[in-house]
Amino acid sequence: MNLVSVGTVAFDAIETPFGKTDKIIGGACTYISLSASYFNSNPRLISVVGEDFPQETIDLFNQRGISTEGLQIKKGEKTFFWSGKYHTDMNTRDTLDTQLNVLETFDPKVPDSYQDCDILMLGNLLPAVQYNVLKQMRNRPKLIVLDTMNFWMETALEDLKKVIKEIDVLTINDEEARLLSGEYSLRKAAKLILEMGPKYLIIKKGEHGALLFHEDNVFFAPALPLEEVFDPTGAGDTFAGGFVGYLSKCKEINWENMKSAIIVGSAMASFTVEKFGIDRLVEVKEEEINSRIEAFKTLTSFSL
Amino acid sequence: MNLVSVGTVAFDAIETPFGKTDKIIGGACTYISLSASYFNSNPRLISVVGEDFPQETIDLFNQRGISTEGLQIKKGEKTFFWSGKYHTDMNTRDTLDTQLNVLETFDPKVPDSYQDCDILMLGNLLPAVQYNVLKQMRNRPKLIVLDTMNFWMETALEDLKKVIKEIDVLTINDEEARLLSGEYSLRKAAKLILEMGPKYLIIKKGEHGALLFHEDNVFFAPALPLEEVFDPTGAGDTFAGGFVGYLSKCKEINWENMKSAIIVGSAMASFTVEKFGIDRLVEVKEEEINSRIEAFKTLTSFSL
Repeated sequence: MNLVSVGTVAFDAIETPFGKTDKIIGGACTYISLSASYFNSNPRLISVVGEDFPQETIDLFNQRGISTEGLQIKKGEKTFFWSGKYHTDMNTRDTLDTQLNVLETFDPKVPDSYQDCDILMLGNLLPAVQYNVLKQMRNRPKLIVLDTMNFWMETALEDLKKVIKEIDVLTINDEEARLLSGEYSLRKAAKLILEMGPKYLIIKKGEHGALLFHEDNVFFAPALPLEEVFDPTGAGDTFAGGFVGYLSKCKEINWENMKSAIIVGSAMASFTVEKFGIDRLVEVKEEEINSRIEAFKTLTSFSL
Repeated sequence: MNLVSVGTVAFDAIETPFGKTDKIIGGACTYISLSASYFNSNPRLISVVGEDFPQETIDLFNQRGISTEGLQIKKGEKTFFWSGKYHTDMNTRDTLDTQLNVLETFDPKVPDSYQDCDILMLGNLLPAVQYNVLKQMRNRPKLIVLDTMNFWMETALEDLKKVIKEIDVLTINDEEARLLSGEYSLRKAAKLILEMGPKYLIIKKGEHGALLFHEDNVFFAPALPLEEVFDPTGAGDTFAGGFVGYLSKCKEINWENMKSAIIVGSAMASFTVEKFGIDRLVEVKEEEINSRIEAFKTLTSFSL
């Protein structure tokens, strides 16, 4: 199935308890597309960068089969920049700097060649921009997945609800699920959120794994307990990329394949956190993915 | 296999976002023994209470097959009392009041009839008291399980290390594993703690499940996502009771049975949190236990 993703392609500067980077490549759509490229031979990307964005990264995208026809390069402008610092527990972080730059006026255009889209992944962005992309699709994709964050719940809730109504899968974290639903119990929160439109809800819990809800069914995928978590940036987007990438390989979108896709997404995310930025993600080998999926099986299998 | 547990039998007064209790029955050994009694026809209890402790609760213990020969009843003295208040997230709590009473001079005696002990469960207590019980066993039990807490790591670390050296399974929470090992990564923490003596380490993560470590193996059991978590008091002890209770039914103590025991312990804990104190735990039916174990299978099973 054909896969189209929209989201940021950006520069990040990151500080963790283990080190610090200068400007490195980041952005939701970067992680989504790279992660998906392990399962889909031609993921299509929609984003915007400035003139300062390195051609070699665009080359890297293309080498990994990623279409960049939907990537706008704005002459004389600068790429979106985010800088953050993680606390010791690696679960929380402070934003040190945000420079929207090209993102401020981002008006995504879906190229004609992307119109045969089966799976649309709307990465975290202003809800109105996500809606705009969705509405440009001449035929409704088979599956629309949306990622968002607490910031939009606090500043653009009506727009967010409008787009949530139109999608199939929503991915948010546990804190955001509680914020969006007003319910503390994740089970109750899920019930309310599923009434807002999506058929599936994924609640990401970072180092505590992820929950998938659909009707009355729940599936839980743990995170692999890793020796070292070096930099969590992009873990959620890598997860989403593995999730939609894997689904795009499936003949059908159903509960069983959704569960597998969650495991694959979690396996992909476990690589990203091992190094800064995309460093680990771009060097992953197929055998490594398979052996990490095996590790997930071992981690949770019991006979009782 | 014969099972002996030591720990507190107490009064609790609890406040949660959902309600408040007067003095109700609590204590680690209460939850451990009641939970174990669903799998073992005669769990033996070692503890101490005051004259104020209700005979009807002792009768309840006996009705559930629990031996109370090791329960000291101190004339003219009062039972240990703890009072606490849970925060909205239910994962953290403040202690409002602690009255040690009979616990201050608790000198446990292992009755002769308990000497054929196969599994010894040392519930959370002063490490020197746990050591004292362990040393009264004429033959070393096949399996010794120890539960402890951060307070003893901070105030009686040397005594704690002495007892940890002699046991087979240590159960602590994630924060305590980090405190005891000085390592943030739970994988690294587990490695260091296993070098201190125990062959198995269980890291309890409350609503985020539990990890079991043994040599290079890791197993993860999620917590069931419940509609309602009413009162988390005793969840960890109920888990421990289900764990040792299930193991006492097994022919052999090995990795596979340990994993199953973790699932059974998690299933039992999921009942305790549904009502205040032991109210839910004492009314559980066998079919309910089986259907909750089935829910765990469904929750984590995938085919990939």
